[in-house]
Amino acid sequence: MIIESLQNAKVKKWIKLKDRKIREKEQQFLVEGSHLVEEAYRAGCLDAIILKKEIAFNTDITTYHVSELVFHKLLSVHSQVEVIGICNMKEMSCIQGKRFIVLDGVQDPGNLGTIIRSAYAFGYDAVVCSKQCADFYNEKVIRSSQGAFFHIACYRQELSQFYQYCKQKEILIYATSLEETSQALSKIYFPSSYAFVFGNEGSGISEVTKNCSDFYIKVEMSSFESLNVAVAAGICMYTAVQSVENRIEGES
Amino acid sequence: MIIESLQNAKVKKWIKLKDRKIREKEQQFLVEGSHLVEEAYRAGCLDAIILKKEIAFNTDITTYHVSELVFHKLLSVHSQVEVIGICNMKEMSCIQGKRFIVLDGVQDPGNLGTIIRSAYAFGYDAVVCSKQCADFYNEKVIRSSQGAFFHIACYRQELSQFYQYCKQKEILIYATSLEETSQALSKIYFPSSYAFVFGNEGSGISEVTKNCSDFYIKVEMSSFESLNVAVAAGICMYTAVQSVENRIEGES
Repeated sequence: MIIESLQNAKVKKWIKLKDRKIREKEQQFLVEGSHLVEEAYRAGCLDAIILKKEIAFNTDITTYHVSELVFHKLLSVHSQVEVIGICNMKEMSCIQGKRFIVLDGVQDPGNLGTIIRSAYAFGYDAVVCSKQCADFYNEKVIRSSQGAFFHIACYRQELSQFYQYCKQKEILIYATSLEETSQALSKIYFPSSYAFVFGNEGSGISEVTKNCSDFYIKVEMSSFESLNVAVAAGICMYTAVQSVENRIEGES
Repeated sequence: MIIESLQNAKVKKWIKLKDRKIREKEQQFLVEGSHLVEEAYRAGCLDAIILKKEIAFNTDITTYHVSELVFHKLLSVHSQVEVIGICNMKEMSCIQGKRFIVLDGVQDPGNLGTIIRSAYAFGYDAVVCSKQCADFYNEKVIRSSQGAFFHIACYRQELSQFYQYCKQKEILIYATSLEETSQALSKIYFPSSYAFVFGNEGSGISEVTKNCSDFYIKVEMSSFESLNVAVAAGICMYTAVQSVENRIEGES
């Protein structure tokens, strides 16, 4: 049976999932396109599939067929995708790990998703987002993460709490900042356990981060310019991982 | 006098500048927001300013006041900006320099602009775009470049021609590729003169790049994942610059 009406109760509920508050209440979110739907399935959080009426799809997951009209109302962008997934939010266990990426007010969903993608590619344990960050269940975040979102732990937390955890576990906190006193990234001796903090696109790191961080670092540039936050984060992650690996190679 | 009609000849001409072909014919393009308008002014390519009617603006540049309706028709995004600049395209001289960023089919305007921003921050001489790349006069490219577009040479060229130039000038070509035979970025000994090539978001580098590049390189990751192209480009630029600088420091 094809659902054709925007007034259908299910359709109304799905459309509401575009709203962050409703997502949090329902503990569900949407993803678009077969790649992300498959990643959600593999991660065990795919609840149902919505298809444009003409498409067949073999799956053991509950499948709804909808009209073009309904389908396009559910899409967040004018994209060419033909499948939408309804996913259950992951149950988050306590934070654990040794190497963290901390986002202090990163607001652009594309930047947030891109950083999650890099964190996963470089083997970080988790991404910790302040309450001021974009919602990581936003469709654009998940799309920019290229599905990495389903493979790395993402937490949303007051950063003061997370910094307390770091102090207890002796995890050093490195905050990126363009201060004159910031140390050059390439000169840092990274321990095996640390947290990198990246600030808001416009205003940088917050007061709580300034008060709690152990070191200020900056990416060396040839002029007093700034980098996109996702680029800066990628450079820091890569450099830190290489720095630790080269030391281990040197020692062995 | 306030221009209120969408049928006004000037307004019709400005709206057409959203179309790449018209931009090329007219040799003009639009930028949005005071930051980019100022950068265009400093770069000497600001031709005129368009303001929402209520705003005064001290400048020696020709200024047009338009109604809200006209202004919003000109904007590419639902943004809060209050000024639009009409800019003349830069006259491009012959390609020259020693360190180049080459984009082989990078199609996302945000990625293209972010790479231009990084290339400027790390002191590269120019960005060379293949004909398949997004148009760098696209408003989103310029916005993502944060104005760096006005400070670094950007060329659009058949890459086969540019690679010929590299061969003549003994500029080594390093193409990023996830091939198994690609060398790890951190192991490369970079000369003082080189070109980095980054490929399309989905399909990577083209045949012409495969045939002309001197080395394949890849950013080491902990799993077989991929990075956003702007992040990968930033990591390569930073690593190469640091590698050359550390060597100079070591020698002195």
